[in-house]
Amino acid sequence: MGETKLHPVITVRLYTDEKCFGPGVAMLLERVDRLHSLRSAAMDMDMAYSKAWTILRNAERQLGFKLISSTTGGRHGGGAVLTPEGERMLSAYQAFAREARSAGEELFRKHFGELPPAFPAVQGAGGPEEANAPDGE
Amino acid sequence: MGETKLHPVITVRLYTDEKCFGPGVAMLLERVDRLHSLRSAAMDMDMAYSKAWTILRNAERQLGFKLISSTTGGRHGGGAVLTPEGERMLSAYQAFAREARSAGEELFRKHFGELPPAFPAVQGAGGPEEANAPDGE
Repeated sequence: MGETKLHPVITVRLYTDEKCFGPGVAMLLERVDRLHSLRSAAMDMDMAYSKAWTILRNAERQLGFKLISSTTGGRHGGGAVLTPEGERMLSAYQAFAREARSAGEELFRKHFGELPPAFPAVQGAGGPEEANAPDGE
Repeated sequence: MGETKLHPVITVRLYTDEKCFGPGVAMLLERVDRLHSLRSAAMDMDMAYSKAWTILRNAERQLGFKLISSTTGGRHGGGAVLTPEGERMLSAYQAFAREARSAGEELFRKHFGELPPAFPAVQGAGGPEEANAPDGE
């Protein structure tokens, strides 16, 4: 049995016909906003640039608007910044995901907070093997 | 842009040290409960039996109790049924996931219901290409 207590992980993704926006795109956009470059953002996530480019273009195609825009020259020397729509999309997704996780944690306590007494095995009594004796019905 | 309206997909998984219970295990258990066989359950999901066996054993190891128990002979002729703990776990997960999805949909409306006016491109104005002209900063 794991050392860490049972806990929920809630993932929120947005779809149109197919997946278009989830934790991966959000992490990329956060980094583009900070690093002003899609290449640096991908590198910071140990993600291939081609993959970063693909998931970003897919998101933009599904959403129907641009999330980042290229900059040529200037202070950031040909990097990328979030478009106003990209900024709003990222903010909305982050707030949505944060509140969904928080609601999920509360619901987890509601449904699983009462479980340990109902699950003697969780308390360390009995192992998986012993519990698996064929019951012969 | 996709034909289908933007909508959320909320996934809930349970972890200890690592992932131990999510949609895949739940779908397997639902089918074991109905088909009285892990092999039939896996087949019904187009999942290799070896994979079904692995994710189930991993879940049991992480949780510290058995989710299914083998039956030898009897009415189901050597199949499998959910243990009482497996039944409770599945019920709790299903209720938890259902309510988390419902809460997530409400939160999605809160954060994205107001977006279309803020996203002219969503309404069909402007394409991704036009919006991507380098802005020269």
